Amino acid sequence: MKLSARNQIKGTVTHVEIGAVTVTAKVELAGGDTVASSITKEAAEELGIKVGSEVCVVVKASDVMLGV
Amino acid sequence: MKLSARNQIKGTVTHVEIGAVTVTAKVELAGGDTVASSITKEAAEELGIKVGSEVCVVVKASDVMLGV
Amino acid sequence: MKLSARNQIKGTVTHVEIGAVTVTAKVELAGGDTVASSITKEAAEELGIKVGSEVCVVVKASDVMLGV
Amino acid sequence: MKLSARNQIKGTVTHVEIGAVTVTAKVELAGGDTVASSITKEAAEELGIKVGSEVCVVVKASDVMLGV
Amino acid sequence: MKLSARNQIKGTVTHVEIGAVTVTAKVELAGGDTVASSITKEAAEELGIKVGSEVCVVVKASDVMLGV
Amino acid sequence: MKLSARNQIKGTVTHVEIGAVTVTAKVELAGGDTVASSITKEAAEELGIKVGSEVCVVVKASDVMLGV
Repeated sequence: MKLSARNQIKGTVTHVEIGAVTVTAKVELAGGDTVASSITKEAAEELGIKVGSEVCVVVKASDVMLGV
Repeated sequence: MKLSARNQIKGTVTHVEIGAVTVTAKVELAGGDTVASSITKEAAEELGIKVGSEVCVVVKASDVMLGV
Repeated sequence: MKLSARNQIKGTVTHVEIGAVTVTAKVELAGGDTVASSITKEAAEELGIKVGSEVCVVVKASDVMLGV
Repeated sequence: MKLSARNQIKGTVTHVEIGAVTVTAKVELAGGDTVASSITKEAAEELGIKVGSEVCVVVKASDVMLGV
Repeated sequence: MKLSARNQIKGTVTHVEIGAVTVTAKVELAGGDTVASSITKEAAEELGIKVGSEVCVVVKASDVMLGV
Repeated sequence: MKLSARNQIKGTVTHVEIGAVTVTAKVELAGGDTVASSITKEAAEELGIKVGSEVCVVVKASDVMLGV
């Protein structure tokens, strides 16, 4: 599926923290930057998210702020 | 100000598109990935966003999805 | 790509409104309900969104409120 | 109260998962599609969300992506 | 309708800016703080949003960041 | 850092609820209104969020709905 989300960047999961219904994961992008994601535990299990997983971080442009 | 947003990554604005009340900007991160941001025109003007601006892209972890 | 987003529902585009940098589309789901989406014009063009397009509406669970 | 949110669709709660501070609920829409929602536990308790509750799922159009 | 959104604060519209498909409004809360909202033009028209409108600003808790 | 987020309002934390990976906080604004925020536990710890903390609530305009 081709997505409207403007931000789809590949990376590798480096850290996973599992809560009761929420999971937070850290993803290292190719360029070395780290992105944090907070998803449902159900989604994390369904996708098999674990340290070392090759993933794509997906963010809608309207959720991206800028700072100067 | 120190922000709770888990994602704060530095980059350089490479493209700006100005709408009636919304502006979309493309930001190239240090690692070469490009991030798109859609903000209000008022915000873009206040921050002086233009091609070449050194900015920080800010995203709340709960707005980041993962794909595999 | 398999997405973490918990909501991925098929439908057909019934209406498209094109702004300067933003496009709003209405999608009729199989069950007859209509969902509105607001995406960047760039994304709408890249995906070829037009009346009649078969699409999938994608929403992160943390963006869904409930009312009673 | 009449809301600006473009998406307000009726359904019935079919599943509830209770975390420490977050609750995820599944809602079956009239047409048979299922929508997942992640809200605070406080909100779920205040609204009395439980299996069988008649609810309205509410989503802002800017939080809806499209895929093709 | 009773909403799960944790933030529902009353105020008065003090400014409206109309784009092609998006409208931004400024709302002055009782305490004097001003909140900006960006909604679809369709929603703004349907709700009759104009300077002087008594409104309620609604924000999901997961969309609220903190800074120190 | 100067942020594009249109809503940056000062207040005092009056309540904190700590989950496994998520924290919800209540912030009383100067005008007396209360705002709820749901952030990662990591962020709450890094910022030292506790009852009495002087904070700034930050919300992107596109995450603010209106009701009438």
